[in-house]
Amino acid sequence: MKQIGVGLLGFGTVGAGVAEGLGRNRALLSDRLGVDVVVRRIADLDLTTDRGVALEPGVLTNDAEAVIADPAVDIVVELIGGCGAARRLMMAALEAGKSVVTANKKLLAEHGEEIFALAQKKNVDIYFGASVGGGIPIVRVLREGLVGNAVVRIHGILNGTCNYILTRMETEGLPFGTVLADAQRLGYAEADPALDIDGFDTAHKASILALLSYGFHVPMDAISVEGIRGLDGMDVQFARELGYRIKLLACVARADGEVEVLVSPTLVPLDHMLASVSGVFNAVMVRGDMTGDTLYYGRGAGREPTASTVIGDIADIARNLRTRQARHSRAVQITRSPPRLRPVAGMRNAFYLRLMVKDQPGSLGRFTSILGNHGVSIAAVMQKAGGGAVDGFVPVVALTDPAIEANLEQALDEIAAVGVVSERPVRLRLLQA
Amino acid sequence: MKQIGVGLLGFGTVGAGVAEGLGRNRALLSDRLGVDVVVRRIADLDLTTDRGVALEPGVLTNDAEAVIADPAVDIVVELIGGCGAARRLMMAALEAGKSVVTANKKLLAEHGEEIFALAQKKNVDIYFGASVGGGIPIVRVLREGLVGNAVVRIHGILNGTCNYILTRMETEGLPFGTVLADAQRLGYAEADPALDIDGFDTAHKASILALLSYGFHVPMDAISVEGIRGLDGMDVQFARELGYRIKLLACVARADGEVEVLVSPTLVPLDHMLASVSGVFNAVMVRGDMTGDTLYYGRGAGREPTASTVIGDIADIARNLRTRQARHSRAVQITRSPPRLRPVAGMRNAFYLRLMVKDQPGSLGRFTSILGNHGVSIAAVMQKAGGGAVDGFVPVVALTDPAIEANLEQALDEIAAVGVVSERPVRLRLLQA
Repeated sequence: MKQIGVGLLGFGTVGAGVAEGLGRNRALLSDRLGVDVVVRRIADLDLTTDRGVALEPGVLTNDAEAVIADPAVDIVVELIGGCGAARRLMMAALEAGKSVVTANKKLLAEHGEEIFALAQKKNVDIYFGASVGGGIPIVRVLREGLVGNAVVRIHGILNGTCNYILTRMETEGLPFGTVLADAQRLGYAEADPALDIDGFDTAHKASILALLSYGFHVPMDAISVEGIRGLDGMDVQFARELGYRIKLLACVARADGEVEVLVSPTLVPLDHMLASVSGVFNAVMVRGDMTGDTLYYGRGAGREPTASTVIGDIADIARNLRTRQARHSRAVQITRSPPRLRPVAGMRNAFYLRLMVKDQPGSLGRFTSILGNHGVSIAAVMQKAGGGAVDGFVPVVALTDPAIEANLEQALDEIAAVGVVSERPVRLRLLQA
Repeated sequence: MKQIGVGLLGFGTVGAGVAEGLGRNRALLSDRLGVDVVVRRIADLDLTTDRGVALEPGVLTNDAEAVIADPAVDIVVELIGGCGAARRLMMAALEAGKSVVTANKKLLAEHGEEIFALAQKKNVDIYFGASVGGGIPIVRVLREGLVGNAVVRIHGILNGTCNYILTRMETEGLPFGTVLADAQRLGYAEADPALDIDGFDTAHKASILALLSYGFHVPMDAISVEGIRGLDGMDVQFARELGYRIKLLACVARADGEVEVLVSPTLVPLDHMLASVSGVFNAVMVRGDMTGDTLYYGRGAGREPTASTVIGDIADIARNLRTRQARHSRAVQITRSPPRLRPVAGMRNAFYLRLMVKDQPGSLGRFTSILGNHGVSIAAVMQKAGGGAVDGFVPVVALTDPAIEANLEQALDEIAAVGVVSERPVRLRLLQA
């Protein structure tokens, strides 16, 4: 049976999972693929830590260039992460005519254009299934299974750390800071949690989903990103009382010929499939023009789930290499007529508002009339009798009908200025059916 | 741009959806694929009904053989259904060296062996994505995305008619017959609903999932199939009170080296993702040894969702044909060492039992001791005070711990024989975490 050689760059959590999985399921894979996939070389700076994976002598090296240059390596798998060495080595691998697999969402979101262009030029495969959704094969689904669909919209829970924190805030009634500290202790959150909780990791993935759906590169600075830092437990509980659960959602959508990309904590109706996604799990709902709503759910991170998707990508390239000499570029198709990206101010969304209102007659009427003046109409209002009063201000919660974001922001500025509230109102978005 | 010609066999609901979808999204598809996919010929016995799809003159014919033989047709799409003409024409297309796409689950479940063998022999592609799950790309996910995983188990809601009926029975408290009649009136159930409600459609799909997961053909008569006909609304409500929702599940699993395939109404815990799947939607939960649990959700039938998956398959073959002359068979890999299929009597499951027990002292103790004698232990019992008494018999509901099916059946026979119950107890399976 023909052998296909794999070279790993990076022997951390996911790298060890890939080496272990390819070893454990080697017979099953060769049965399914008709080729034998073998890890030939692994490059890492750390040559001593025991990853619990048995390797032949000479496989592990600290010379990444040698792995790329090795003629026995057909596929280079980049699992270093970040935009430094990873970027340089990935470009070198493509330049050397090697097919590449990567899980590096940051690199693709920030430098995807040059990477895909080089892959196209060298006519080699580049696969990045594990860059979004970990063990969920959502990239493959968009590139292949739903290829006949125009994507209407995508809503994704793409960060397990945030979803874990939000789940515990709701079920245990705990404040954000307490759960974050706990998540850090348990290893579900990094010591520096900013990339996750401020929404940038989700935004990297949203950029890749937009590229796959609409065929153009969405730069990070064009994406409106709000994270969950500072989310008040009060709002989690009020949302629940109104029949919603707060999730950090990436939203990628097409509206009136423009594309919207947005990351923000969003109220999801309890009977929506995304509301059932709890703990560290991820899920992506894709509405295609032909399929209608479809959903993909699984573990969005972790050694084995991520390695599973990396191995799925390796398998595809191995199948390609089995049957032909000339390689078949699967580089992302960039559309000849990219749509316009809509700024957040022009988007139309429904909102949850929570105002700390002066507990005196007329306060409620004052803020509803300001909203009305800016074209924002209210669908529901809830005032908690007694509960939650702070220094003579009581929480009032309102759900709005869909409104232009800029109008809503102006109304909130005005409400904050007239002095019937103790602080600028909290506003969160609602997932619209 | 190179053109790839498609020939459709069958111009019914799905056929019209495929022709319409390929037309509407033609520019998008050629952008994504680098080839232009064109419907060249369509064969159907009915040449007059207007399907609302504009066709060039000469495309529609009643000569299916001519479509297969047409040199301008690269890909033959079989959408006739059943095992008569569909089988003969599919074999003819493969024999003629044409790649084939089909949505015909019955044909694959009953004659898959000869079909896959011929495709292999002729070295042509055969794709059948739409045979399971309609618009959900579950076949592709198993063949490609999760290819590096040993499948631990699959649980699927694979029949929209049954799920629609079960959803309405629960939410509206209606009896089975009423909802079925309503579903027939609304077009969600066939005039002859047996294929759906007796579980055979689900079993066809389970057989295909087992083939994809474990690489061997599971004949229909080897699958234990129970449908939802005659499911008592009382059990739907009791299940709900116990924190479960009844779903018709296909179960495909590996246990101790043997493979289990089973179709039956099953109690799913309310907080399980499958419990959130309501109405005509389908979903499949796949537990891979690397990914852990993943779930795929969407519309399991209907013109456009099914056509979406057929087009995804056509697109794959078109990509293959774009880059090479020699075709690359994706015929299903049959394992060299097929596992043993476990008979239902040897399976180990937890159960929901509902007994109509004589309302007199000692009845309860009598049935628990008989269960105990057969090694079946009870995890919970619920007796409704007052409610549901029929002719002096009252419903008692019990949940068991996992037990061997044969032991449970013997115990139920014995309970029925000793006369403390008015009928053989109702028993349903529980989804185990």
